[in-house]
Amino acid sequence: MAENEALLTLEGWFSYHDFRTINWEKWKAAAIEQRQAALNELLDLMKQWDENQAAGKGSTATYAMLGHKADLGFMFLRETMQELQEVKTAFNKTRFADYTHSDYSYISVVELSNYVNNPGEDPLANPHVRERLFPTLPKWQHFCFYPMNKKRSGEDNWYMLTMEQRRELMRAHGMTGRKYAGKIKQIIGGSIGFDDWEWGVTLFAHDPLDLKRIVTEMRFDEVSARYGEFGPFLIGNLLTEDSLQQLLQV
Amino acid sequence: MAENEALLTLEGWFSYHDFRTINWEKWKAAAIEQRQAALNELLDLMKQWDENQAAGKGSTATYAMLGHKADLGFMFLRETMQELQEVKTAFNKTRFADYTHSDYSYISVVELSNYVNNPGEDPLANPHVRERLFPTLPKWQHFCFYPMNKKRSGEDNWYMLTMEQRRELMRAHGMTGRKYAGKIKQIIGGSIGFDDWEWGVTLFAHDPLDLKRIVTEMRFDEVSARYGEFGPFLIGNLLTEDSLQQLLQV
Amino acid sequence: MAENEALLTLEGWFSYHDFRTINWEKWKAAAIEQRQAALNELLDLMKQWDENQAAGKGSTATYAMLGHKADLGFMFLRETMQELQEVKTAFNKTRFADYTHSDYSYISVVELSNYVNNPGEDPLANPHVRERLFPTLPKWQHFCFYPMNKKRSGEDNWYMLTMEQRRELMRAHGMTGRKYAGKIKQIIGGSIGFDDWEWGVTLFAHDPLDLKRIVTEMRFDEVSARYGEFGPFLIGNLLTEDSLQQLLQV
Amino acid sequence: MAENEALLTLEGWFSYHDFRTINWEKWKAAAIEQRQAALNELLDLMKQWDENQAAGKGSTATYAMLGHKADLGFMFLRETMQELQEVKTAFNKTRFADYTHSDYSYISVVELSNYVNNPGEDPLANPHVRERLFPTLPKWQHFCFYPMNKKRSGEDNWYMLTMEQRRELMRAHGMTGRKYAGKIKQIIGGSIGFDDWEWGVTLFAHDPLDLKRIVTEMRFDEVSARYGEFGPFLIGNLLTEDSLQQLLQV
Amino acid sequence: MAENEALLTLEGWFSYHDFRTINWEKWKAAAIEQRQAALNELLDLMKQWDENQAAGKGSTATYAMLGHKADLGFMFLRETMQELQEVKTAFNKTRFADYTHSDYSYISVVELSNYVNNPGEDPLANPHVRERLFPTLPKWQHFCFYPMNKKRSGEDNWYMLTMEQRRELMRAHGMTGRKYAGKIKQIIGGSIGFDDWEWGVTLFAHDPLDLKRIVTEMRFDEVSARYGEFGPFLIGNLLTEDSLQQLLQV
Repeated sequence: MAENEALLTLEGWFSYHDFRTINWEKWKAAAIEQRQAALNELLDLMKQWDENQAAGKGSTATYAMLGHKADLGFMFLRETMQELQEVKTAFNKTRFADYTHSDYSYISVVELSNYVNNPGEDPLANPHVRERLFPTLPKWQHFCFYPMNKKRSGEDNWYMLTMEQRRELMRAHGMTGRKYAGKIKQIIGGSIGFDDWEWGVTLFAHDPLDLKRIVTEMRFDEVSARYGEFGPFLIGNLLTEDSLQQLLQV
Repeated sequence: MAENEALLTLEGWFSYHDFRTINWEKWKAAAIEQRQAALNELLDLMKQWDENQAAGKGSTATYAMLGHKADLGFMFLRETMQELQEVKTAFNKTRFADYTHSDYSYISVVELSNYVNNPGEDPLANPHVRERLFPTLPKWQHFCFYPMNKKRSGEDNWYMLTMEQRRELMRAHGMTGRKYAGKIKQIIGGSIGFDDWEWGVTLFAHDPLDLKRIVTEMRFDEVSARYGEFGPFLIGNLLTEDSLQQLLQV
Repeated sequence: MAENEALLTLEGWFSYHDFRTINWEKWKAAAIEQRQAALNELLDLMKQWDENQAAGKGSTATYAMLGHKADLGFMFLRETMQELQEVKTAFNKTRFADYTHSDYSYISVVELSNYVNNPGEDPLANPHVRERLFPTLPKWQHFCFYPMNKKRSGEDNWYMLTMEQRRELMRAHGMTGRKYAGKIKQIIGGSIGFDDWEWGVTLFAHDPLDLKRIVTEMRFDEVSARYGEFGPFLIGNLLTEDSLQQLLQV
Repeated sequence: MAENEALLTLEGWFSYHDFRTINWEKWKAAAIEQRQAALNELLDLMKQWDENQAAGKGSTATYAMLGHKADLGFMFLRETMQELQEVKTAFNKTRFADYTHSDYSYISVVELSNYVNNPGEDPLANPHVRERLFPTLPKWQHFCFYPMNKKRSGEDNWYMLTMEQRRELMRAHGMTGRKYAGKIKQIIGGSIGFDDWEWGVTLFAHDPLDLKRIVTEMRFDEVSARYGEFGPFLIGNLLTEDSLQQLLQV
Repeated sequence: MAENEALLTLEGWFSYHDFRTINWEKWKAAAIEQRQAALNELLDLMKQWDENQAAGKGSTATYAMLGHKADLGFMFLRETMQELQEVKTAFNKTRFADYTHSDYSYISVVELSNYVNNPGEDPLANPHVRERLFPTLPKWQHFCFYPMNKKRSGEDNWYMLTMEQRRELMRAHGMTGRKYAGKIKQIIGGSIGFDDWEWGVTLFAHDPLDLKRIVTEMRFDEVSARYGEFGPFLIGNLLTEDSLQQLLQV
């Protein structure tokens, strides 16, 4: 039935992207002890995030963002919505948070589409599927996030297509994506009912030009060309504990 | 007559959604006595809201919101518009309000559509109808709010359809909704003339994935696929008095 | 000639809607003498507005607004644009203004459309017409303001219709409005050349559900269904001098 | 050739509209000597602007704006882009600027379209043309500014019309404008490549209703009905040195 | 194959536009020593930028922006995304940054389209191509930046055209551009996957009217008329070290 067709997705960890700007003037004006205390609280949190990841109960990525939109970008994968809220609150309770402002965020859940799934197979028994639903975020050098919708406009209405049409369009799209295996790691967050767009897409890359290449090439796929609507794009570089400390060194 | 067809709705309690961010820096910097005094004033209000609910004169829900859009989400159902304004003012007069900022709100009235009503029946004599017009908001774990319009764009113009066409499209939509009985509690707020969109939709769920599932499945119904326009989505987790105190504990 | 057809409107008083939020924290923190002094300056202004109304040179309405968009809503009708600017400046010079912020306003002129006028009649000789162009704003309990345009989009282009087509569509619309006589008082402000939308609509009601009913019913008229574009909606409850003092009592 | 057809415009002085809000609380709180010093610096600038105008090297208009968008509106015509930047900087360096905030501005160049020009004539030899390219801004009582585009949407694409079609549509439009000779003075600023819209339109009027009348009547011309896209409208009343001092008197 | 056709572009240096407003009140209120110290830190940075350019590892342009959108405009070309982030951070760590706010920025990579390339030629062996991919930004008097998309709307969908159609449309567009050789220097930044629009266009000119002329003329090319979508336009005048010091002199 058409109603069930809509639901052929698999869901994994819940996801929270948090993009923050740093109040540099305040940071620089703070006494060195204040800055150190604030930094220590952030490093403590990062240790907790590492432990969560080591325990297989989630994963966290930290990036230095480019441009005026944000300075820091965090991506949190957790087992429950409750934990997404606790992560936010714990961050806001640190002294470090007082030097930042959260201007953008995104709530979603890691999603695999069944459009290309083999019928009769239990996808959750498949380790490859599990790895995609509960991924350890890679420490790749570059990171890009953008939300998107499928269009519902006049003749270009994704939600009026048949399951078969959607499956075919997605299959071609998936083949474009597969050409970037090893170059791009893509995580799709389903966000219908959770946030302002239908999906939040996160891409990791070694070479930032691959981010441009994959998004460009996919835009020529009919599924994006006719049906894709894109929100803001945010891009950043990997932050290690060392490079974070260097970023904040004044 | 076409004119009267427009009005086949029933209205219940007036509704005010208030979404507030917490100024965490200020909250943490306050002396413990100040925080306690502020919290006490909030708890006093919550007691009044409980009394209002116990008296059958309204209902109130309190949620911890995810992401940067808001930290606290309140939904107030009251008998009059006058009380919606008094609720806002009473909140703003508390000391607790000085640590928050209201960035988003929504004004509507609980609405039942008569599209699927049996002719000849007095709906207000029906306890099931009364329960839906004057609902006690459930203490379910997850909460989602979004405003929406029916499109009036070129060929896709809801308001140019006949009553019969609209009734048929809504009937199919209602059947999708009914599949989630026990999983999703939905409250429709009519807001034409009251706020920027035509409806404000509130969903309560035990499992947050059901929020995603129902909104996704409904989006494939023709009534949403062709005619639905959606605003921002806000999502939160239930706050009890205990978890509220824990949230605000610093 | 087509050119003249565009101009078959009558204009009355100029109109200024001013929507203000109250800085509650600052208001509560002020010494009682400061608050009293500020309030007195506001009450003095209100007395002047009453005198202006008593002299038949304008009219003023004051409402407590719902939701986060505004706390106070003022509607000023005056004889000249010069007075609209003086009203704003006089308000801003009061001490009370320092506790408020004006986030939204609207400039228009009371307008009557001649679409349904009897040819050969001098409309300004008609007391009923004069009362609509120079109205004394009613002290009704509820108030709603929204701006709107007539669409110019593809096939749905109001400004490409003939005078006869527009007249016919407006006539049907007017009949919908007339059904609410005694329930709704409607004031149309023409704002082409003055503000961001083509009209600003103000509705007064005894029963807030009538605001929802009339806007809904009109939305099914072809003139709105096909040609109406609507901006933000603001809604409020009547403020008397007593209820204003109560609102500001802390 | 089509390419050259695009360029049949004449350009005069560069134009900078600057719309500022006054921080009334700060202004009122300042000591009388501070206010006087700030005002003197503004009056000094105005004297320089007068000298610039007297020397035929530019022109300046000053208006008190209505509504919440701005309190003061300045229109500067100057010989170079360099001077537009210097005017801004000089203003910002005054003490008066510290009591204001510039929330909106517009950069353009006075433009005459050649659509209706006589071939074979050197337009710059024509004193009437020179007066329109290098106009002395009138001291008329009312002032309106709005930016606009020509649409490029589906069937309604101005830039896909032939030169002949555009010329014909503009000729009709010009005839509407000419009916307001003596009532409306219109200055078109071309802003393709300079600011967010394609043109910025400034209208001066003795009677504010003529602003409404001309914009309304033109909106029924096909060139606006099908191809016009309009941005925000700002409206103000003439400020003389006397009325400016009165405005700022507290 | 269609997939590869999408990727026929060459990429050069990464690009960061940073547009900042000056907090004039704070700047003027600072002690002269504070201002001098802040300015010295900016001049130190500018020296580093010059050294970077002299070493052929990037290029930097500095402009005084017109209007309220920004006061200072910087364009940084660098070899890596990492350096774009370091440039931002280094700026924010200066004392000068405390007197500014970055309200707009843009991230892209210098891009040459291969639509008009000769097959069989290695473009990177071509010094002319290298000069365009790794350009030294000119010290021309005027500067304009705007982002843009290619439309994907109904019949006007760039991404549904064939490679041949796109190549033909771009060839005509390129010929328009070539007419401005010596008058306009254009740098295209590809930003799919990096920022909110698909391209960021930077134009340098001796005569500001040439900015208007080229953008206008190109808008009549079918590729822009049917397929171009344009974001905000920012315009500025060249800042030398001298004129920067003069700008900041108070």
